Amino acid sequence: METEMEKALNQVIEVYHKYSLAQGNPHALYKSDLKKLLTTECPQYTKKKTATAWFKQFDINEDGAVNFQEFLPLVMKVSLRAHEESHKH
Amino acid sequence: METEMEKALNQVIEVYHKYSLAQGNPHALYKSDLKKLLTTECPQYTKKKTATAWFKQFDINEDGAVNFQEFLPLVMKVSLRAHEESHKH
Repeated sequence: METEMEKALNQVIEVYHKYSLAQGNPHALYKSDLKKLLTTECPQYTKKKTATAWFKQFDINEDGAVNFQEFLPLVMKVSLRAHEESHKH
Repeated sequence: METEMEKALNQVIEVYHKYSLAQGNPHALYKSDLKKLLTTECPQYTKKKTATAWFKQFDINEDGAVNFQEFLPLVMKVSLRAHEESHKH
């Protein structure tokens, strides 16, 4: 049985796969997939920086795709922001 | 309105607060709180390493408590494992 934490993180994984599977490779978020993900899931991050700039930053190994490991810095960013927000209310 | 990703990450934050609030400080996961969290949320991590050892590793600034930022490496660990698991099925 899944714990609360596993359940939450499986949902993060589902979000990643939702966009990575768009072009058939579950391990690759191509530039257009990342753009769609950013626009849909965290639009606030596309205001000051383009999806292309984010893509360059996340694609550490420069293989033209963002894998799940490379996607984690975005998860961290959104988590830190959401955590701050949680204490504003 | 929350996006899917924000929803998932807010649940991670809720898990953190569930244990950090046990002793009244929402920003501090004390050793016993971390032990409870590990045992309940990710018991597989307590098999080879004690909660005390994890606590020392996570409490980067050595202030005797794990704050949300310091909790993120665990979130990463569980995410990477859950992602691997997701491709085994």
